[in-house]
Amino acid sequence: MYKIAVLPGDGIGPEIVPEAVKVLEAVSRRVGIEFQFTEALVGGAAIDARGIALPPETLELCRQSDAVLLGAVGGPKWDTLPPAERPETAALLPLRKELGLYANLRPAFLYDSLVEASPLKKEIVTGTDLIIVRELTGGLYFGAKKREQTAEGEMAYDTMYYTRSEIERIVRLAFTIARQRRCHLTSVDKANVLTTSRLWRDTVEDIKGEFPEVTVEHMYVDNCAMQLVRRPAQFDVIVTENTFGDILSDQASVLTGSIGMLPSASIGGAVALYEPCHGSAPDIAGQQKANPLATILSAAMMLKYSFKMDQAAAAIEAAVGRVLAKGYRTPDLYVPGTQLVGTAEMGQLVRREL
Amino acid sequence: MYKIAVLPGDGIGPEIVPEAVKVLEAVSRRVGIEFQFTEALVGGAAIDARGIALPPETLELCRQSDAVLLGAVGGPKWDTLPPAERPETAALLPLRKELGLYANLRPAFLYDSLVEASPLKKEIVTGTDLIIVRELTGGLYFGAKKREQTAEGEMAYDTMYYTRSEIERIVRLAFTIARQRRCHLTSVDKANVLTTSRLWRDTVEDIKGEFPEVTVEHMYVDNCAMQLVRRPAQFDVIVTENTFGDILSDQASVLTGSIGMLPSASIGGAVALYEPCHGSAPDIAGQQKANPLATILSAAMMLKYSFKMDQAAAAIEAAVGRVLAKGYRTPDLYVPGTQLVGTAEMGQLVRREL
Ligand SMILES: CC(C)[C@H](C(=O)O)[C@@H](O)C(=O)O
Ligand SMILES: CC(C)[C@H](C(=O)O)[C@@H](O)C(=O)O
Repeated sequence: MYKIAVLPGDGIGPEIVPEAVKVLEAVSRRVGIEFQFTEALVGGAAIDARGIALPPETLELCRQSDAVLLGAVGGPKWDTLPPAERPETAALLPLRKELGLYANLRPAFLYDSLVEASPLKKEIVTGTDLIIVRELTGGLYFGAKKREQTAEGEMAYDTMYYTRSEIERIVRLAFTIARQRRCHLTSVDKANVLTTSRLWRDTVEDIKGEFPEVTVEHMYVDNCAMQLVRRPAQFDVIVTENTFGDILSDQASVLTGSIGMLPSASIGGAVALYEPCHGSAPDIAGQQKANPLATILSAAMMLKYSFKMDQAAAAIEAAVGRVLAKGYRTPDLYVPGTQLVGTAEMGQLVRREL
Repeated sequence: MYKIAVLPGDGIGPEIVPEAVKVLEAVSRRVGIEFQFTEALVGGAAIDARGIALPPETLELCRQSDAVLLGAVGGPKWDTLPPAERPETAALLPLRKELGLYANLRPAFLYDSLVEASPLKKEIVTGTDLIIVRELTGGLYFGAKKREQTAEGEMAYDTMYYTRSEIERIVRLAFTIARQRRCHLTSVDKANVLTTSRLWRDTVEDIKGEFPEVTVEHMYVDNCAMQLVRRPAQFDVIVTENTFGDILSDQASVLTGSIGMLPSASIGGAVALYEPCHGSAPDIAGQQKANPLATILSAAMMLKYSFKMDQAAAAIEAAVGRVLAKGYRTPDLYVPGTQLVGTAEMGQLVRREL
């Protein structure tokens, strides 16, 4: 029996998360492994009910679970709060730090039937199948920060801080993932300018001997942002620090069609967290317009990374592929000639294909 | 009479820079304003000849000139040097800092006849005409850095440091540019995470009243990286800090076809510097394959920003448009049905259209 903490959050969260839960239930019946789901408040919903974006009982539930499934957090209702107190920041950052989730995995994979939905030309996007491994508990996000009034005026700083051991663990993880894929690792940094990037690059060089089957390439972050648009199919696994990973993974997320398709896993601690890459999309919340596939595919990542149920994970991915191939589309992916469906209907279609 | 320092640099630099110089000479004859060109060493060429990427006499020449035209620097020959000592870093960063070039302007504009060369679908890229205003002498590039061995192991940091006045000057410049264009400014930051971004956002808010005709929007950098791929035509002027600007401007540079088309201006000091966005492309150097248009368009920016010769600048841009419309292409832009030309030939075609 596995305990799964379920945090629907805000906006479309409460619509998409149940679809993923039902997919997990279908898998559970099939393979005879029991999942016990417990819901808790997070984000704006938690601010409204409890006055805090990450209530201690939610954190405690996560700690006592085997995996966490999160919907999305935030919305215009809380945008009057200072940026640092908004649900996204005030819930997600402490959750990652407290659970020790130092690695964020974001695959960007082109489903054949979604070529039309990509902003890229067919010949450019074809063959795209990459995963970004983003460091998630270091760098500018968690280094020393200050804003102050000095004799010369107001100033502020943020510190991009990394230790060698922080870099080692994420880089080793990325190599391990590359070894299970196409054995190509692109380490992204800005070593011509940043001291942390030089430490990063040296660490990659020191570790690469442990993974002789993997070829490693170093790429500057500005070049990587360019290459992701020009020739995304050249990448297999990309590993990079927190801020660069934030930017590049969002960029990569739209290449393959819709960010509504893309799952993520945050791993490295005792409990891992799974959530779609997209946000809470308040503009379409409550209208059955949201694409539940990113959350369903996040549940597949949970099966793979938390429960070692690789086959069941692959079965979900294949089911999603078949539903898309049959022409069913939520509004974010709709093009003339396809069949428009709502959130719950899409969830049902996937379960039927399982 | 205007004095122009000419720094061809490395790789394709010595092939493309003369084409831009000849275009300036053609303009000079036409409008009766004299330009005096003086060449100097920079980058790898300077390392080889003088043992240093930015020799003091080169810097001195720049200081005594009215504008600087730079080709490109760097190449595999110097890649065995530590990243910080390579020509790009060791020449460009001190040049920017010493000349006080706090603003880097990078337009990304779609020439109608280049739609085919864009990695984006026609309906996505059509209408793209934006300019990125990147802060160039602050942030992680120039903040305190350190790498050291501590009791707990090796660590390193870089500091993203900004004062309010550094932000004010770049933001005011961006507003001024927006006012001369379509009056829309997107300020890009990561205010949900970074203290410097909060100072940045507050400064933009404090300044916007001075430019009532300009509408301002704040956008997170990760979202901007996504929007640049999804809907690049939504942007007019983007203003952002140094590192974000480095990444986003490289990303934007490939949207409209080829980075071989895109000029840049680094302004803010007594003397401004103009250079193509692309690098020294050592793989095609000396083969007459390089596209000189980015450098020629950089010369047009020089006429506009340093010499207030807006008409002459527009004439060059129009000439480039006509040459492309007639189907002439350097190899970076070649598609079947167009006419392949070399570097010098392309320069000549532009001068003929002037
Ligand atoms: C909401 C924000 C703090 C977060 C981040 O920057 O990490 C988000 O953009 C993400 O990528 O999950
Ligand atoms: C070469 C490098 C230091 C430079 C930068 O990062 O500024 C380059 O990428 C650029 O954008 O001009």
